[in-house]
Amino acid sequence: MLKEYVSPVLPDKEELKQEIKAERDRLFGYQMRLKEAKLPVMVIFEGWGASGKGSVIGKVINNIDPRFFKVKTIAEPTDEEKRYPFLRRYLMEIPEAGKFTFYDSYWMEEVTNGAVKGDLPEDEYKKRIASINRTERSLHDNGYLILKFFLHISKKQQKKRFDDLLADKDTSWRVSKADLFQNKHYDEYLDVYDRYLEDTNNPTAPWYIIGADSPRSVELQVLRFLNQGIDTALKNHSLAVPILQNPFRLVPMPKLADISFADKVLTDEEYKEKLDVLQAELLQLHYKLYRKKIPVVICYEGWDAAGKGGNIKRIAEALDPRGYEVLPIASPEPHEKARHFLWRFWTRLPKTGHIAIFDRTWYGRVMVERLEGFCSENDWQRAYNEMNEFEKELTDGGMVVIKFWVHIDKDTQLERFTERQNTPEKQWKITDEDWRNREKWDAYENAINEMLEKTSTDFAPWYILESVDKKYARIKALEIVIDAVKKACR
Amino acid sequence: MLKEYVSPVLPDKEELKQEIKAERDRLFGYQMRLKEAKLPVMVIFEGWGASGKGSVIGKVINNIDPRFFKVKTIAEPTDEEKRYPFLRRYLMEIPEAGKFTFYDSYWMEEVTNGAVKGDLPEDEYKKRIASINRTERSLHDNGYLILKFFLHISKKQQKKRFDDLLADKDTSWRVSKADLFQNKHYDEYLDVYDRYLEDTNNPTAPWYIIGADSPRSVELQVLRFLNQGIDTALKNHSLAVPILQNPFRLVPMPKLADISFADKVLTDEEYKEKLDVLQAELLQLHYKLYRKKIPVVICYEGWDAAGKGGNIKRIAEALDPRGYEVLPIASPEPHEKARHFLWRFWTRLPKTGHIAIFDRTWYGRVMVERLEGFCSENDWQRAYNEMNEFEKELTDGGMVVIKFWVHIDKDTQLERFTERQNTPEKQWKITDEDWRNREKWDAYENAINEMLEKTSTDFAPWYILESVDKKYARIKALEIVIDAVKKACR
Repeated sequence: MLKEYVSPVLPDKEELKQEIKAERDRLFGYQMRLKEAKLPVMVIFEGWGASGKGSVIGKVINNIDPRFFKVKTIAEPTDEEKRYPFLRRYLMEIPEAGKFTFYDSYWMEEVTNGAVKGDLPEDEYKKRIASINRTERSLHDNGYLILKFFLHISKKQQKKRFDDLLADKDTSWRVSKADLFQNKHYDEYLDVYDRYLEDTNNPTAPWYIIGADSPRSVELQVLRFLNQGIDTALKNHSLAVPILQNPFRLVPMPKLADISFADKVLTDEEYKEKLDVLQAELLQLHYKLYRKKIPVVICYEGWDAAGKGGNIKRIAEALDPRGYEVLPIASPEPHEKARHFLWRFWTRLPKTGHIAIFDRTWYGRVMVERLEGFCSENDWQRAYNEMNEFEKELTDGGMVVIKFWVHIDKDTQLERFTERQNTPEKQWKITDEDWRNREKWDAYENAINEMLEKTSTDFAPWYILESVDKKYARIKALEIVIDAVKKACR
Repeated sequence: MLKEYVSPVLPDKEELKQEIKAERDRLFGYQMRLKEAKLPVMVIFEGWGASGKGSVIGKVINNIDPRFFKVKTIAEPTDEEKRYPFLRRYLMEIPEAGKFTFYDSYWMEEVTNGAVKGDLPEDEYKKRIASINRTERSLHDNGYLILKFFLHISKKQQKKRFDDLLADKDTSWRVSKADLFQNKHYDEYLDVYDRYLEDTNNPTAPWYIIGADSPRSVELQVLRFLNQGIDTALKNHSLAVPILQNPFRLVPMPKLADISFADKVLTDEEYKEKLDVLQAELLQLHYKLYRKKIPVVICYEGWDAAGKGGNIKRIAEALDPRGYEVLPIASPEPHEKARHFLWRFWTRLPKTGHIAIFDRTWYGRVMVERLEGFCSENDWQRAYNEMNEFEKELTDGGMVVIKFWVHIDKDTQLERFTERQNTPEKQWKITDEDWRNREKWDAYENAINEMLEKTSTDFAPWYILESVDKKYARIKALEIVIDAVKKACR
C-alpha cells in the first residue's frame, strides 16, 4: 500500500486555506451530532518518526470542545503491562459514547517494532494481526467509528527533518536513538509497515495514507477523511449489524431440562474429607501457576440461590489471598455502559500468575440484558460470537478460562428463597427482584440453553455444577479447577 | 514501640479456639452493618518478612462475603508510578463505602525501605511522614476506618522461618534476596520500623503490634482489634468531625463585589498580537517542562458563561497535544461518590512533564455540593483545609498548581445567557440548570468569597480573571501560566 502510494493533487494556497476552513466548520458542526447519536470515535495516527503526528492532532482538536475528546499517547509497554494480554492496555483507552479519542500511535507500533527487531516470531505476528482485526470489527459492530491514518514521508524527507531538529540545541532532544535507527533501516520498516497496513486494511476500519512530505496539506487530507467517516457513521449508526457465523469448535451441551440430580449427593464425611484434600492440592497448584506465570479466570453464573457464593468461597479459601481476587459483577455504571460491553471485563482481567473469580460475568449480556431489554436484539445476538472471540483472545495468550453454570431445579429455588425470607440473618440475600426473576424462569431457561449451546467452545467450555446438594457442587468445582490448572502447568 | 513490646498472655488451646470462633461470628455479623452504615474499612498489614501477613489475611477474609472486600498487594513502584506523587498509587486503591480492603503492606514499606537503604534523605523522610499523617487523618475525617497492624517476629524466629522455607525446594523460591538482606540487617530495620511506627501512631489511626512468633495466636489478636475498631467506628460514624485550624499561609483576596472591570479590555489588534507571542512562548515552555519533568495542574472555576471554555482553548491550542489533557469535571459517578471526595482527582493527576487542565475542580465541594446539599455542612466546612492539604501535597512533590476564578458580573451573564438562548448553534450550551443557578447568584457569591479567602495559599493561590472582556481574560491567563511555569523551570 505504501510502495504504490501517490500523493493526491492538492489545491493552491488560497484554495487550500478556504477548504481547510470549510472542513473545520464541518467538524465543529459534527461534534454535537456525534454526542446526540452516542457515537464513539477512535482516530488513530500511525506513521514514520517526524512525520508530524503530534502537529496534526494539535490542529484537528482545535475544532472540538475539550469535553468531547481525549488525546492518548501510548508508549512502550511497561513490565507490569506485559503481564496482561497484549490488547488490554489499548482497549482500556477506548472512548465513551459520543466522544473522540485521538491516538498518537496505537497497537500498530508495538507489532511493527517487534517485527523489525525480530522480537516477534512469525506465528506470534499472525496471531496479533488476527486479534487486531477481530477486535476492530467487534468495536465497529458495537458502534465505534475507527479512523486509521498513516502519515507517510520519504527516507530523504525524514533525514532532513531529523537533521534540522538536531542542528538546534533546543530541539535536538526530540530526536531519539530509535528515530535514527528507523531512518537507517527505512527500507526494512517500509516492508514491515506495508505488510501490516495490508494485513489490517478492513472495510470496517480502512487505512488512510496521508502524504506528509508537504506539511501544509496534511490537515486538509485528514479533515476530509475524518468528516467523510463521521458522515457515513452517522448514516449507519442505528442500523443492525449482520450476525456472523460461528467460527469456533463447540462442545455439545445438554439441555437444562435433561440434567439429573440423582446420585449427585455427598455425605458430610465424604465432603469434609474430599474438601481438605482438594483445597490443599489447589493451594500447591496456586503457587505453581504463580511461578509459571499463568493467569486464570474462573467464571460463575447460575440461578439465584443456586449456591454460587458458597461455591466461590470454597475455591477462594484454598488460595493465597495475595494471588486472587473475587470480582462481583453488578449492573454497569454510566462510564461502563458508555463503552463496549466487554470493556469493564478487559479492565478487570488478572495478570500473569493471578486468579480472577468472576461472580457473574459478561454472559449477563445474553441473560438479564437480553430478557430485560437493556440491549437491543441485534446486540445480544452478536454477543455470542463476541464473547467467544474475547475468550479466544484470553486463552490464546495462555490464560485458563473456566466457566461454571451452577444449576438447581425450580422447586429447590423456592425452598431456598422461602428459607432466606424466614431467616433474619439471611433476609438481605433475598430481594423483590429475585422473586420477579423467578417468574421468568422459563424465559431464562430458554436463554441459558442457547448460551450454553453457542458459547461452550473447546478453549473455554461450560461446566454444569449440579447444586441441589451444594456439597456435591463444591467438590465438583474444585476438581474441575484443579484439573484445568494442572493441565496448564504441565 | 517495637523494642518495648511484650506479647499478650493468650488463652490455652481450647479456649483460643472458642474465642476465635466468637470473634469470627462477630466479624461476620458486622459486614452488613458496615454496608448499611456505608463505612469503608482499610485493614493494613505491615511487618517483617515471613511474619505471616498473607496467612492471617487469608484467615480473616474467610469470614466476609467476597462482595464486601478486596485484597491488595502493593509492590515496589514501577518507573511509570514514580512519575506521579508518592501517595497516588496507594490512594487509588482505597475501598468504596461499606467495603473492606486488606493491604499486604501499604505506604510504610516504601518509606522504611528507602530509609534503611539510604535512598530517602532525612528531609524527604519527614515530608513523607507528614503526608501520611495528614492523609490518614483526612481519610478518617471522611469516614474511613483505618486499622494498622504490624506483625512482629524476632530475628531468630525470622531466620528459622527462612531456613525452613529454603530447605524445601517447593518453597525455597518464596525467600527473596531482600528477605535475607532484612534478616542480616535486622537491627537496622528494627530502628527504622520503630521510628516509623512512633512517627505515624495517631489516635485516629493507631498501630496495633501483633506478636507473631507463635502463629496460632495471630488471628485472634487481629480479629479482636478489628472488631473493636469496627464497633467504635459504627458508634462514631454519624458524628460531625471538629474543623481544624488553618495551618497554611494565606494570600489575601478581594471580595468579588470589589473587583472592577474598568480598563480590563483589549482591542482586537492588541489581543491578536499578544496571543501569538504568548502562545509561541508557552509552547517552548511546555517542551522545557517536559524535559525538566515538572507536572502542572491548571484549575478553572467560574460563573456559568464566564468564558471558561474559550479561555481553556487558548491555553490548550498552544500546547503539544501529547503532553496535556483537558479534564471536564461533571458530577461524580456512583463509584466515585462512594469514596473520599478527592479520590477522583487523585486518579486524574498529571505525570511528570505533563499538564492537566481541569474544567471545574475539587472546589465543587464548597460551591455546588455545599449549596445543593450534596454533602453535609461538616463535610464542606472541613473541605477548605482538606483541599489546601491536597494542594500542599501536590506542590511539595514539585507540581505547579494554578487556580483561576473566571469572573463576570451578573448583567454580563444575563446578556450571554440570552444570546445563547437566541442562537441555534449555541443553545446546547444553556440549560434550565444554568437559569436555576443564576437565581442563587448571591448564595454562590457568598460561598465563592469564602472559598477564595480560605484556599488561596501561597503555594497554590487563586487568580481572578476579569472576563467581561474575554480577550483580556485569555491574555491574563496565558501570562499567569507562563510566569508560573517559568519560575518552576528555573
